[in-house]
Amino acid sequence: MPAPVRFELLGVDTRSNARRGLLRTPHGTVETPVFMPVGTQATVKGVVPELLRACGSQMLLANTYHLALRPGEEVVRSLGGLHRFMAWDGPILTDSGGFQAFSLSDRATLTESGVAFRSHLDGSLLDLTPERAIAIQEALGADVAMVLDHCPALPAGKEAVAEATERTIRWARRCQRARTRDDQAVFGILQGGSHADLRSECAERLVEIGFDGYAIGGVSVGESPEEIRKALEVSTPHLPAHQARYLMGVGRPQDVLDAIAAGVDMFDCVLPTRNGRNATCLTRRGPVRMRNAAHKADPRPIEDGCDCPACSRFSRGYIRHLFLADEMLGPILASVHNLAFLHRLVRDAREAIGEGRYDRFRAEALEALGP
Amino acid sequence: MPAPVRFELLGVDTRSNARRGLLRTPHGTVETPVFMPVGTQATVKGVVPELLRACGSQMLLANTYHLALRPGEEVVRSLGGLHRFMAWDGPILTDSGGFQAFSLSDRATLTESGVAFRSHLDGSLLDLTPERAIAIQEALGADVAMVLDHCPALPAGKEAVAEATERTIRWARRCQRARTRDDQAVFGILQGGSHADLRSECAERLVEIGFDGYAIGGVSVGESPEEIRKALEVSTPHLPAHQARYLMGVGRPQDVLDAIAAGVDMFDCVLPTRNGRNATCLTRRGPVRMRNAAHKADPRPIEDGCDCPACSRFSRGYIRHLFLADEMLGPILASVHNLAFLHRLVRDAREAIGEGRYDRFRAEALEALGP
Repeated sequence: MPAPVRFELLGVDTRSNARRGLLRTPHGTVETPVFMPVGTQATVKGVVPELLRACGSQMLLANTYHLALRPGEEVVRSLGGLHRFMAWDGPILTDSGGFQAFSLSDRATLTESGVAFRSHLDGSLLDLTPERAIAIQEALGADVAMVLDHCPALPAGKEAVAEATERTIRWARRCQRARTRDDQAVFGILQGGSHADLRSECAERLVEIGFDGYAIGGVSVGESPEEIRKALEVSTPHLPAHQARYLMGVGRPQDVLDAIAAGVDMFDCVLPTRNGRNATCLTRRGPVRMRNAAHKADPRPIEDGCDCPACSRFSRGYIRHLFLADEMLGPILASVHNLAFLHRLVRDAREAIGEGRYDRFRAEALEALGP
Repeated sequence: MPAPVRFELLGVDTRSNARRGLLRTPHGTVETPVFMPVGTQATVKGVVPELLRACGSQMLLANTYHLALRPGEEVVRSLGGLHRFMAWDGPILTDSGGFQAFSLSDRATLTESGVAFRSHLDGSLLDLTPERAIAIQEALGADVAMVLDHCPALPAGKEAVAEATERTIRWARRCQRARTRDDQAVFGILQGGSHADLRSECAERLVEIGFDGYAIGGVSVGESPEEIRKALEVSTPHLPAHQARYLMGVGRPQDVLDAIAAGVDMFDCVLPTRNGRNATCLTRRGPVRMRNAAHKADPRPIEDGCDCPACSRFSRGYIRHLFLADEMLGPILASVHNLAFLHRLVRDAREAIGEGRYDRFRAEALEALGP
C-alpha cells in the first residue's frame, strides 16, 4: 500500500541541521518547515477558513480527546469527516489525546491498557486505549494521526521516564496494528525526556515498527528552552532523514528557530491564537501589547511590512479600541496576525535554508526578537 | 453646494407604497430598500469587512455616543475617519446619540440645551448638544449623520410626546445650523409617537428646515408591530417622495416587510447579530435555534438554498457543535447568516417592487415566516 503521506527532503542547510522539504498528503502538499495552527475543537479560535488561508496556514491540528467527547467522532464521520466538518480542505493532523493524559492528569487514570478519562464536560468515561485512539482518528479522517503516547509528568526521575518510554513503544506497536485506513498516515511519538539513551532507544524501536513520520513528544510541558534543545539534540540524530519530524506543542518563535536548526520540520502551538486573544501580538522585535495606551492614536499596523489581513487594513489604534471595547474583532485580528507572523517566520526560514544561510538568518532573527 | 447624498426614486409598487431607489453617497451607491448592519463601536460584532461584503452588506451604521466616549471622535479623525478606522470603504451612517438618551436614560439628563450623559464606562461627562452631536459626527466622517432628537420614554401621554416633538424640531434646526461639512448628509428625525397630528406637523417643519433625508424615530422602543405600522402610516405621507426614508432600529423581518410596504427605504437593527450571538438563526420559515439537539448530526446548512459564507460551507451539526463548545466561530457564522438573510429579504423585496408584485411577495413571505 502506498504511503498516504510522503516527505520529500529538498535540502539541508550547510551549517546546521535545518531542512527544507515537502510533505505530500491526500489534501495537498505542505512546504516544511511548517507551523500548524491549533483547532482543538475543529475550529482555530475565531478564525474562519478563508482568513486562515489568507494568513498563510497550510495545515491544521485538531484534537482527538476533545472531539471524541464533543461532538463525538461518529458525528464528525457522519458529517463527512473533519475536513468537511470544519470546511478546511487542506491537510489536517489530529493529536491522539496522549497529551491530555498529562495536561488533564487529575481526570485521567493511566494503566497499561490505556488512559481512562473522566470527561471534563459531563464526567462521562472515555477509555482511550491505543486501539481506540486510532479508531477515533480514523473516524475523524485527518491526513496524519498520532499514536497514543505516555508523557510523564515533570519533574520525573529517570526510572519514571524510562517506564513511560517503554509504554509509549508498546502503545505505538498496538497503534500500528490497529490501523485500517490506507489513506491516513500515522506518526510515532518519541519520549525519553532529556536522556540520550532513552531517546535513542525509543527512536530506534519506533523506526523498527515503522511509522510515516516521527514526533518529538514530552516537550512543551514546562521545561526550559535549554531542555527542549537537549531533547532535540538526543532525538533527531536517530530519526530517518527522509521522514518528517514534528516537534509537538512548540510555538515560541525563539524555540521554533532553534528546533529548525536541529532538523525539525513541523510545529504546532496554541501560542499565536491564545496570545492574540489576550491582546499580545508577535512581531520580529518581540511582543507588542495591544491594550497599551501608547497605541491609542497610532496609525501604524501591528507590524510594519506585514501583509496579513489584519496589518494590511487596520491600525494599532483601531485594534486597541477593539480590545478596550471588548469587541470580538480584536482577538480575531490579533490571532490572524500572530498566525501570519509564525507562518512568515517559517517561510523565511525555508528560504534561508534553500539559500544556505539559515544560521545567519536564525542569529539575526533571535537578536531582533530579544529574550 | 451639491447634496452629498442623493436619493433617486426608481419606482413605486403599483399596489402598495413600496419604493425602489438608489442612495448615492460619497462612498458608493446603495440600492434601496436597504438593511444596515449595526457596528455600534465601529465594528459589526465578530464580522470582518470581507464577510460583511460577502453576505451582501451595502451600508453600515455606527454610534456617535459610544464612539465619542471610546475611543473619542478625535482619535477616529486622526486615524483617517470612520471608514479608514474600521476598514469599511462603503457608505456609513452614524446615529446621533439621541436614542441613547432613551436607552441609557438613567445616565442621561435632558434639558433644552441637550443631553448630559454620565459615561457608562468611567462616569465622565458627555454633554451632547445638537451642535456637539453634529461636530462629533463630522469628526467621525460618516456619509450620513443624524440630528439629535428627543425620543420620549413610553408610555407617554400626548403632552409629553408633543413636548419631545417640539424639542426635536428645535434641535433639528440647531443641528442644521451647526453643519460645516459639505460632503456629509444630515437626516432629520421625526418624532410624534402614533399621533397623526404631531407626526405630520413634525414632518412638515423638518421639511421646511430641509434635510437630505428623513428618519422615523421613536419606534423600536418597545411598541407593538401595530403601533409601528400606525407611526409609519401617519408619517410617510408627509415626507418628500424624492428623499430617503429611514426607519430607525427596526429589523424584525415581518416589521421590515410591513415598513417597506409603507414606503420606507432604509433600516438598521442589532437583531441579526444579537440573535446570531445567541444561536438563533433567521430563515424564511422563522427562527432556528442552533443549540437544539435536533441539529446534532444534521448535514444541512442553516437555511436551504442560502449562499452566504456560513451556509455555503458549514452544516447545522458543525454550527451546533461550535455553540456547545463555546467557540467564537458559532456567533460569527450565525451573525453572518442572519445578516445575509436580511440583505436577501430586502433584495427580494427590491426585485418584487421592480416587477410590481410586492404585495404578493410580502404576503407570501409573511405567511412563511409565521407570527
